[in-house]
This record gives sequence, structure tokens and C-alpha cells, in this order.
Amino acid sequence: MQAVSPLPRTERKPASAVRTVTVLGATGSVGTSTVDLLKRGNGKYRVEAVTAHKNAVQLAQIARDLNARLAVVADPSAYRELKDALAGTGIEAASGEAASIEAAQRPAEWVMAAVSGSVGLRSTLAAAKRGATVALANKECLVCAGAMFMRTAAASGATVLPVDSEHNAIFQALTAGPREDVSRIVITASGGPFRTWTREQMRAAKLEQALKHPNWSMGPKITIDSATMFNKVLELIEAHHLFAVEPAKLAVLVHPQSIIHGMVEYRDGSVVAQLGSPDMRIPIAHCLAWPTRIDGPAAKLDLAKIGSLTFEAPDPDRFPALELGRRALETGGAAPTILNAANEVAVAAFIGGQIGFGGIADLVEATLEAAERRNATAEPQDIDEALAVDHMARSLAHDLFPEIAAKSF
Amino acid sequence: MQAVSPLPRTERKPASAVRTVTVLGATGSVGTSTVDLLKRGNGKYRVEAVTAHKNAVQLAQIARDLNARLAVVADPSAYRELKDALAGTGIEAASGEAASIEAAQRPAEWVMAAVSGSVGLRSTLAAAKRGATVALANKECLVCAGAMFMRTAAASGATVLPVDSEHNAIFQALTAGPREDVSRIVITASGGPFRTWTREQMRAAKLEQALKHPNWSMGPKITIDSATMFNKVLELIEAHHLFAVEPAKLAVLVHPQSIIHGMVEYRDGSVVAQLGSPDMRIPIAHCLAWPTRIDGPAAKLDLAKIGSLTFEAPDPDRFPALELGRRALETGGAAPTILNAANEVAVAAFIGGQIGFGGIADLVEATLEAAERRNATAEPQDIDEALAVDHMARSLAHDLFPEIAAKSF
Repeated sequence: MQAVSPLPRTERKPASAVRTVTVLGATGSVGTSTVDLLKRGNGKYRVEAVTAHKNAVQLAQIARDLNARLAVVADPSAYRELKDALAGTGIEAASGEAASIEAAQRPAEWVMAAVSGSVGLRSTLAAAKRGATVALANKECLVCAGAMFMRTAAASGATVLPVDSEHNAIFQALTAGPREDVSRIVITASGGPFRTWTREQMRAAKLEQALKHPNWSMGPKITIDSATMFNKVLELIEAHHLFAVEPAKLAVLVHPQSIIHGMVEYRDGSVVAQLGSPDMRIPIAHCLAWPTRIDGPAAKLDLAKIGSLTFEAPDPDRFPALELGRRALETGGAAPTILNAANEVAVAAFIGGQIGFGGIADLVEATLEAAERRNATAEPQDIDEALAVDHMARSLAHDLFPEIAAKSF
Repeated sequence: MQAVSPLPRTERKPASAVRTVTVLGATGSVGTSTVDLLKRGNGKYRVEAVTAHKNAVQLAQIARDLNARLAVVADPSAYRELKDALAGTGIEAASGEAASIEAAQRPAEWVMAAVSGSVGLRSTLAAAKRGATVALANKECLVCAGAMFMRTAAASGATVLPVDSEHNAIFQALTAGPREDVSRIVITASGGPFRTWTREQMRAAKLEQALKHPNWSMGPKITIDSATMFNKVLELIEAHHLFAVEPAKLAVLVHPQSIIHGMVEYRDGSVVAQLGSPDMRIPIAHCLAWPTRIDGPAAKLDLAKIGSLTFEAPDPDRFPALELGRRALETGGAAPTILNAANEVAVAAFIGGQIGFGGIADLVEATLEAAERRNATAEPQDIDEALAVDHMARSLAHDLFPEIAAKSF
């Protein structure tokens, strides 16, 4: 009888009784949430490796709490501290980029890839190359080298599970029908702190105003991206690669309460969505237990208490990032990598007070146009090429910076 | 690579190139929507049989349009008209209950079961018994004989696909995780025409006020059920059987816009929902194409245009049906059948002006209590037993009627 679930239980891949896991980037926001869930696991997980950038004290505590076999700090200057903090525990300590990559190569069934930046790219790719189940929280893999990353995962038989709340929502909603019957994928956006501001108010926005995100508590870079909506552009690029969906089928919908995280529209008119409290432990728990589920500590959703969910079409005039993102996706190749690099330069400059808020999108646009004029948008074929494109784009953005900065105040 | 859909395409049962289908109850609201979709099928469907109660002219037209092999009217007095209307077409004409059941027994892969009442029960069961894929729109199968119906379907390997928008939504949302990891199933309710009325206003409600449903255009019985929320009680009973979920995990949430049709909460805090325009062709198209999807003619959902979705906990004081439903579900056995029969008697009396609006729930409660006092709530084991319970409950309700009616104005 198939009335209950359209798929007989035997068709779901069973998780092993004890799952070996590795957490890359264990001290960051996604990493500590993952550690929290692993601690609640009651023997369901055996931890192979944990890594961090340089917070040796916190990493050593995590390694002890989880009884990990290996702890790695990427920054060699933190090695001594890590080694001392793990003395007598039997937990191996290591440092450096090669060791971070080796941590990903060790035979854990499931790898949380929560390191940002280029180190994150290499270690995540290492896990994907050996066919692991990769819970993907590193944006660079998809934004800078999406086609290559997905090809690598496909070749090794790796499973890529998206951790980001929006992509995780879409991944869940995609279970309701075949991919070829999807007519639209919708990423929701809180609209950020400037959702109701005028264009003029936005151009004059101060840093502390842009840092006030209404729903999520995140780092400054991501919070500024939320104010410009470049965060949604990066998410569209990620969705394009993760779900192999053409740009024309991708849409952004402003939904200030951030309760519906993503939606999939099927050709028959059904829209399937995932909802939840804004707590990253929900998508992380989903990835950790997939294809089954585990109990999660996040607050249960109470829609009667929330009362109302609202929706608006995003305003292309006040949020030029969205149109830039669409253009970069349509150009394809290295254009998304260039957009990402230029945005990082621009946001750093805004945080440093060297550029006005409106200058962020202007600098990204100018950089994309300069790269196109130079025919520098060919698809990167490996990490080194992707990093070279990133470097070139940053350098272009720096060259263009003085002119844009002057106009942006 | 499994990033796109957690299930490789090959694991989905492929639909045959041409699907043989039968439509039981082709002239009703669900039936004509099904016919509309079949007509758009462009040779994808071969129609075995179509049946109706007694509208011979409309049925003959449908049989001609779909090039069906057999057309059956349940009412023998309509046979001559049907026979004449099909003269020269080569389409077989028949009438009577046995012929209606035989229509269901003919070898169609997919059967839309959209006949209401006891004839519907027998013909739907006949389709389930031979292992067909049954798109279930007949309420009686689950409300009057749910345990028996689901056992029969399980034994024959039949697939039961729920057509009702709420259950169809839940069915779609259940694809996102194993059933044992479901913590709550939520059925949404528009709240009906009296959502914002006081208890006193409701007791004095006139028939024409109860007939004004805010979102859906339906028959008078269902519309009155929406005003009392007995429709949600029947849906809870159906969900209990369809999804094998215990009553404590079932909930009703008032959502006046009727855009989210149903939700499934998983133990990790994820809530997966199905949304859509209020158009029955969406769930019918889902059932018709399952496990794939087809293009549907329904308007695409535009949440930015809708603007806001609101939610309220249902008020148990103004909608006593919900508590009566929960009691009937917990009592189990024949209690849901008795509730359904008493409600049908009460609604007919309200439509006939013989009972006040508040008397509907009062009569259902009194009938349930009388049946319990008589120990007449044992689980019906076959259709005849289910129909006997139904008959007994109607007779009890009629006996109790004068006293309740007098108090209800």
C-alpha cells in the first residue's frame, strides 16, 4: 500500500547505525550548531576530524567534547596552542592548509563543509572527490567554481546536501516531484534592513544601519549582503548549480518574516515549500540525518502565534544587485565568480568607510563590465583557475575603486 | 550525484505512455475537472469507463468527448436517455448499482473515485480490490469504513492518492521524510463564513449566511460543513486512515486565504507544506500524473499579489465540531461513521429549516452519546456493517431530533 508515502521505505538509503562525521569549520556559526547537534547524538556519531581557522582553544574543547580523532587549525601560528590544549587526550593535532585538506580526505561518511573562503573550497572539494556525503555550507564551491564542483561530485558519486536554509528548503521541496517537472524555484528574502527605505535613504545609509538584520544573527559581511540583496544573488548562483536549473526558472520573493525559506513550483500549479523557525539547527539537522530525520532542538513553528506571513516582489530599482546577478548568471562562465569577488571588495570598503552603500552595486557592475570587455569570463576548469579569476576580479575592482568611491557618497 | 533530488529518477515508477483511466462520478464537480484535464491529455489517456448518478445527457457528452468504452448511470430511470444519446457511437451504455461497480472493476490503471455516498463506497472499494491506482475523492470510504478500506487497498497493492486539496497537500509534503519522523500533520481551514462571528450570532445564523463560503464554490452540504467546521472533522478522520497517523498528531489551523492546503511537521522542526490557488484541478492533476507531473490549467500562485497569509488557532468554543471529532477519533471503531451520519441528518434538517445552526453540533453530540450508551461503536468489518451503522446512526439522530430542534432556535 502506497497511500502514506509515495516511496516504499526500502527505496530510502538507510543511515548506518553509527555515522562517522567530520566538521570542517567547527568553530564558526554553522560549525558550532553542528557540534551542538552532534553532542545530542547519544553515540549515533563517531567524529573523525574537526577543523578551524585559528581558534585553538575552542577547537580543542570541541574535539574533546566530541571525542574526535583529529583536530586541525588552518593557521600554523595556532598549532602550539592546539597541541597543548589536547595534550594527554590522544587526539591528534595538526595545522596548515594541507592538514585541513587531509582532514576532509579522512574516511568520514558525512562531512560538514562550513569553512569559508578558498581553504574551504579545497577541503570541500577533497571530501566531494572521495564520494562523501557533503553538507555544503561553503559558498565559494558553488559561486566560484560551481560547474566544476558539481561535476566532481557527480563523477565520484558524492551526495551534496545544501545547508543554507533557502537551499535546504528547496532540496526538501524537490522531493515532491521529478526535477523535469519543476517550473520555478523561489528563494525567499527577508528584504534586509532597507526593505522599506527609499533609494535616496539607501544611498546615504550608514554602516550601523546596514548591520541591523531583522531576523538572523550573522557576521557583518553576510549582513551587508542582506542589505544589498547580494546574498540572494549568491544564493541564485548556488541554486543554479545545486539544482541544475536554468536562470529563467529562478526567482526571489521578499518575505520579511523569513518563515518560508524556499519554494518549488511544479508545472501542475502545486507549490511545495519548507517552513521553519529561523534556526540554522533545522537545516543542519536535516542534512545530518538525511535521508531520515532526527529530533531537533529548534523551537517548533507556531503559525497561529506568528499570525501573518507577508510577501512582496523585490524592487529592482532599489536592489540593483538582483539584475546584476541575473546578468552574471546568463553570461555564465566566470561571471558569477567575478561578481562575488567584486562584491567582497566593495563590502570590505563599505565596512571600512571608504565607499558609500550605493557604491557596492556600482563597483560590482563596473567590475563585471570591465571583465567582459577583457573577455575574461571563461569558465574556470579547476580551483587554481577559479582562484585566479577571483584574484583578477579583486584587482580589477581595486583599480575601479577610486572613481566609484568618489561618486558613492 | 544526488544533489538535485534525493531519489534517482529510476526509482520513480514510470507512468505508461498511455494510461487507461476510469472516472466514477464524471458529472460532479471533481468529475468534470477530471474530464477537463483528460481532454487536455492529447492522447495520453485511454478512457475505459465513465459513470454518473442520473445526468444521462451530460454523461453521454463526456463519454463521446473522451471516447470512453463504457458509460453507466446509477439510476436505472436514466438508462433509456443515455442509450439514445450514445446511439451509433459504439460506446456501451449500462445502468444500476451493479453496473457502476462493474465499471470500477474494468481494467483501468487509474480510477478517479468521485461518487459520493454508499454507491461510491462500493465502486471505490471494487477498484481498490483489484489493485488499481485510486484517486480518492469519495469521503465515505475513509469516514465510514476507513480501517477496512485501507486494509483492502494494502492487501491488493492498490495505491490510494488523495484528491481532497488538504490531503493531497499532506501527501505531497510527506515525500520530504520518512513517516515515522512526522511529528504533526496540520490541516488548514478557511474558517468558513462564521470565522469572525460570535457564538450568539452563530446560533442565530440563517441558511443563506451559512451558504456563503469565502473561497471555494461547493455544494450546500459541504458549505454548511465548512460553517460548522465538521468538514475539518471529516478530514481529520480521513487523514487518520490515509496516513496511519494517531489522532494526537493531527491538528487544524485556521488560514482564511486557503493558499496553504496542508502541512507536515518533522521531528527536526522542518515544516513542509503544499500551496496553490484554490482550484481543484491542481490536486486532480497531481493524482492523474503521479508520480510525475503534467501541465495544469490552474492559475499560477502569485504570493506577492496575494500579499499576506494569516493564521489563527481554531476556537473550540464556537466550533464544538472539532472537539466532537477528536472524541470520535479517540473512541474509534464506528464512532466516526456515527458522527458523519448524524451530521448528514443535522445538515439536511438545517437546510430544511427544521433546526437552528447551533443544533447541528448538538444533534451530532447527542447521537454519539446515545450510540456509546448502547455500545454501538464496534468497528465495521465490511461495507454492509458500515452501512448498517450509518443507518442505525441516522435513525438515532432522527429519534433525538425533536428535542434538539426545539432547543436550537
